[in-house]
Amino acid sequence: EQQTHTGSSVHRVIGRFGLPESGAESRFYTNHVLSYDQTHRTPRWVAEHLSSTRLLGEANRKQCKFRPDPSVPELFTAHNEDYLKSGWSRGHMAPAGDNKSSEQAMAETFYLSNIVPQNYENNAGFWNRLEMYCRELTEKFSDVWVVSGPLMKPQITDDGKKTVSYQLIGKDEVAVPTHLYKVILAQKDPSSDALAVGAFVVPNAPIGFQHQLQEFQVSVCDLERESGLVFFPALQKQQLSDLCTVDSCQLMDFRRFSLYISSRKMQSANSVYRLEKILAELQEAGIAPDEHLKQIYQQRRTELERRQDTNTHT
Amino acid sequence: EQQTHTGSSVHRVIGRFGLPESGAESRFYTNHVLSYDQTHRTPRWVAEHLSSTRLLGEANRKQCKFRPDPSVPELFTAHNEDYLKSGWSRGHMAPAGDNKSSEQAMAETFYLSNIVPQNYENNAGFWNRLEMYCRELTEKFSDVWVVSGPLMKPQITDDGKKTVSYQLIGKDEVAVPTHLYKVILAQKDPSSDALAVGAFVVPNAPIGFQHQLQEFQVSVCDLERESGLVFFPALQKQQLSDLCTVDSCQLMDFRRFSLYISSRKMQSANSVYRLEKILAELQEAGIAPDEHLKQIYQQRRTELERRQDTNTHT
Ligand SMILES: [Mg+2]
Ligand SMILES: [Mg+2]
Repeated sequence: EQQTHTGSSVHRVIGRFGLPESGAESRFYTNHVLSYDQTHRTPRWVAEHLSSTRLLGEANRKQCKFRPDPSVPELFTAHNEDYLKSGWSRGHMAPAGDNKSSEQAMAETFYLSNIVPQNYENNAGFWNRLEMYCRELTEKFSDVWVVSGPLMKPQITDDGKKTVSYQLIGKDEVAVPTHLYKVILAQKDPSSDALAVGAFVVPNAPIGFQHQLQEFQVSVCDLERESGLVFFPALQKQQLSDLCTVDSCQLMDFRRFSLYISSRKMQSANSVYRLEKILAELQEAGIAPDEHLKQIYQQRRTELERRQDTNTHT
Repeated sequence: EQQTHTGSSVHRVIGRFGLPESGAESRFYTNHVLSYDQTHRTPRWVAEHLSSTRLLGEANRKQCKFRPDPSVPELFTAHNEDYLKSGWSRGHMAPAGDNKSSEQAMAETFYLSNIVPQNYENNAGFWNRLEMYCRELTEKFSDVWVVSGPLMKPQITDDGKKTVSYQLIGKDEVAVPTHLYKVILAQKDPSSDALAVGAFVVPNAPIGFQHQLQEFQVSVCDLERESGLVFFPALQKQQLSDLCTVDSCQLMDFRRFSLYISSRKMQSANSVYRLEKILAELQEAGIAPDEHLKQIYQQRRTELERRQDTNTHT
């Protein structure tokens, strides 16, 4: 019934000096879209589209710096200082690794509007593997849409009450989420109507390799109720299949993940000593280097020795 | 820089099935405007305009029932059952008492979209007096704008961390605010540019008569940072005077408030016994009834005795 008053005299009188602004509107970037939460100084949701071709490219995260989003008002932005020594890492919602196609796109994922305080181990481990899984999906699906964001989940306290409790860090009081969510929508090929969806909620804490992604699966509806958001509102949700039935929902295992991390570390190692150490640590973990890693090791070793030679001779 | 992408191909691809919706848009009612918080199942802010003429009328809150707002999706609405036996009252943000001019306007303030879980004593006491103060302001100012809402303030916990902690009540997990805020903007007369503003944050807890309103005053800027909202965004805030300098910021005192509450109780008393009890309680509190209350007492007593006569003789 109140719809009849929209924009009428009520608006003119009550909104004379403008109605309160929460800044929740969608913000568009080169390769992601987000809604900012001015109260929490984090995104509320970040949406992306992935496809095998859109993931290609050579943009390098080493060129990127975390910094305040110039489009967020100073009063409501987080700053790097908030995260420093806070005990929390700066966790990307739209991952840098999804944006190798463009330096600009990658740089924009380092805006603090795309960042939440994230447990270090979770960021480097389980969440990282979940992000890789999303990229892997583009090998089997032509289009993958991913929405990621922070969540504040309640606990039952001693007095039996449901209580939401979360930390604020830094001068800007950035809210540390208790959980993180991802909703993944995948389409087999552009010509088909076949869509699969999976929603996942993980604690903002270390999650080991003994845990399967499916342990963290929730229904989209439950996540909507909990987050206060409607995902993919233009989508007929009845026709969707379950992503973990259509696909494996299997994250990269310990061995493959360790080899992958070691290869990345080797590529940025700055001394032969460091290179040897990475190899030793891997072997201590009981993992034998595969052919690919051995290649990377040899290549980097040659580079470093050549560089040392050059340094010595000048 | 990202503004250049607005509504471009990014939107088409990423927003193919619609971008996530938080339902934070302004909702217009007969005599108030609000933004709903789908995560908390409460309003985020509620805006009103008061003037001496707009406050006139005979609409009666007895005709009104609290109920879900038909414009809020079922997944995100609160229900009366959430509040029942929760230990928290249903606290109006746009007060029923500001809407005597229209049955419809008053009924709409009883939508749960305008309600937050509020401490009973605070609701009936300090906050009630603050609402009265806002109405009183219309005697001195031609136009008064009020924005009210819930707030989650952090505490420093034992470990030195800043922590936000709040309860959720009922099946719908309605968030109990730690604090409530009001921003009051008052204009002397329509032809002058003279505007005064006051922002207040009160704990969602009993507040006694020993406390002055000014103890709870904060700067608008601090409240904006804390709430994540920009109030009166179209207003030049430099030119504003402080409401508590221009006006008294004096709430109704204990004696006047007790007389007022007693008069309202008497008007709805259903027996002479009840009427006598209200009078006795007032005198126990050390307050002698004034002429106005004596009149109300006599009038109601006559009504009740006449009614009893009628009942006895039929
Ligand atoms: Mg990360
Ligand atoms: Mg009230």
